Amino acid sequence: MSIFDVAVWDEAEHCARMLDQRRLPNEVVNLYYRSAAEMADGIRDMVVRGAPAIGCACAYGVAVEAKRLAKQGIPSHWPTAMAEGMATLRQSRPTAVNLTWALERMAPLLETTPPHEVPQRLLQEAHAIREEDIASCRAMGAHGAALLPTNSQRPTVIMTHCNAGALATAGYGTALGVIRAAHTAQQGNLRVIANETRPYLQGARLTAWELLQDHIDTTLITDNMAGWLMANGEVDAVVVGSDRVAANGDVANKIGTYTLAVLARRHDIPFFVAAPLSTVDLRCPTGREIPIEERSANEVTHCMGIRSAADGVKVRNPAFDVTPAELITAFICEKGVAKAPDQEKIAKLFQI
Amino acid sequence: MSIFDVAVWDEAEHCARMLDQRRLPNEVVNLYYRSAAEMADGIRDMVVRGAPAIGCACAYGVAVEAKRLAKQGIPSHWPTAMAEGMATLRQSRPTAVNLTWALERMAPLLETTPPHEVPQRLLQEAHAIREEDIASCRAMGAHGAALLPTNSQRPTVIMTHCNAGALATAGYGTALGVIRAAHTAQQGNLRVIANETRPYLQGARLTAWELLQDHIDTTLITDNMAGWLMANGEVDAVVVGSDRVAANGDVANKIGTYTLAVLARRHDIPFFVAAPLSTVDLRCPTGREIPIEERSANEVTHCMGIRSAADGVKVRNPAFDVTPAELITAFICEKGVAKAPDQEKIAKLFQI
Repeated sequence: MSIFDVAVWDEAEHCARMLDQRRLPNEVVNLYYRSAAEMADGIRDMVVRGAPAIGCACAYGVAVEAKRLAKQGIPSHWPTAMAEGMATLRQSRPTAVNLTWALERMAPLLETTPPHEVPQRLLQEAHAIREEDIASCRAMGAHGAALLPTNSQRPTVIMTHCNAGALATAGYGTALGVIRAAHTAQQGNLRVIANETRPYLQGARLTAWELLQDHIDTTLITDNMAGWLMANGEVDAVVVGSDRVAANGDVANKIGTYTLAVLARRHDIPFFVAAPLSTVDLRCPTGREIPIEERSANEVTHCMGIRSAADGVKVRNPAFDVTPAELITAFICEKGVAKAPDQEKIAKLFQI
Repeated sequence: MSIFDVAVWDEAEHCARMLDQRRLPNEVVNLYYRSAAEMADGIRDMVVRGAPAIGCACAYGVAVEAKRLAKQGIPSHWPTAMAEGMATLRQSRPTAVNLTWALERMAPLLETTPPHEVPQRLLQEAHAIREEDIASCRAMGAHGAALLPTNSQRPTVIMTHCNAGALATAGYGTALGVIRAAHTAQQGNLRVIANETRPYLQGARLTAWELLQDHIDTTLITDNMAGWLMANGEVDAVVVGSDRVAANGDVANKIGTYTLAVLARRHDIPFFVAAPLSTVDLRCPTGREIPIEERSANEVTHCMGIRSAADGVKVRNPAFDVTPAELITAFICEKGVAKAPDQEKIAKLFQI
């Protein structure tokens, strides 16, 4: 049992298990799920977040639902029996593309597997989804670690934003996977600066906690300190994840990413984006076509649930921003790297 | 009685009065001070903040101390009688240069005024300090308002950081004084974007509240959203205050200011700094000589007093950063304006 068992199968309890990320970093609590409906509630309530992690959770939700049904006798028609549970999972986070992706991978098995083998087959597939994600993140890590600079004067310092870590994936991380691999490659001679990432504070709550678990030297700052540390020569590279990459290499990621890219360019600091190839959306020619979700005003008028702002103030709360490809030193995925990414180089990654 | 009576004389209670800024925006509470020691406690406990406001508070602290002593009979030697109270005020915020400035202005009056007239004379001087600050901010406002762009498509949008407002001065503000004057000059056709300004949240707690009191349309964002709004053409100018200006025009101000200046330059948005000439420290040739205070880690690991970060994480917490003069469109003070400020243009402001 790893501390980064974000969404797994619990062999002792014969059910799905998730680490409750809402209670991090103050408490490490595991929750157990015995049906698709329970798992859908967990996903909806943000026990788990991050696209690959949600995909994993959904797959185990399908597996545990089949197990539950089989206890009452093998259904005469698995697709019918599973329909309600799978629909509930699909609707648990309407915009999470990985839910649909996981369900579309599991659904055919209901038809092609001998009925009494379905529960075990679905569990195998969920395990495969999880293991493939970890392998993909490790490959990304290796590609990225080879790119990161080293600093001859002091430990290399890498800045990151939000949480593109083990907690957002099946257990290794995209941006933080690159940092983990570089930390190993540089024999621990590497430090991380984690931006707290208002309004939801994923950097403070999740990234700092996650890196400390792995004994990686981590310094927390508020988001508005990044530029000043860069100006003082205290940052050697920036590595972030991505929620969606356009065909031309423009990158949508957590709000604040664009500002970091502008600052990195001014200070000649390399700026890397690490994300699985599944994040590239070829239907979006450029970043302009990526829709930006505007979230609740309460996140901005409050901090950690406490009201900070004057009543009646207006609020903007874009959850993401778009960084143009021209500000990105390299896009790192499991297949390889696109330096100075553009449409042609992104397309080539699909042919590796 | 104005809502912006930051530090004043209360005619009804015959004592000094301050607005308790620690309780804004949730509560508007006035506190009363009847001795220098009480006033020093108030200054130390951050009832008031902002250099000019602290100078005012200190002056009224001297006046109320003289009033208290006179009740027990006119002292035979005012300087001796006042020494302890004035020392207490001087030490209440060791780095606040305006404390010393106010005390040095009040002290000679203890010697030059007929003894029975001292309390009234000190109160007159405190009033003069307050009125001069308001007049200075209004002059700054007029100079700045003439510089701000207008937007022919929609209301002009001005971004500001931290609180360089009525609450930081005697009652009109430096950066927010410019915004107030521009709001009037543009017949209300002006909106403000207030950055929340982590870690201490002066933007959310104070600027948003202060501008809403004056019915100025204000939108709150987290600090990391500024770049994205600029990229989308939603910002016409940035106006900030300053804690110290070097002889060459480099500007120390609240952490995050430098990042805004870099972003403004990338998007060709004018970036203005408004501060009284007393903020210019000719002993600092450039920004490199301005010491940057590093504050408590707790401010970063907590939000509104609630712990957000993993235990054991390291923290950086520089309270200020330095923006090089080359990123500043104009420095605005009560005497006039230095466009594209440099050493020569800053020096000329002292000759106006």
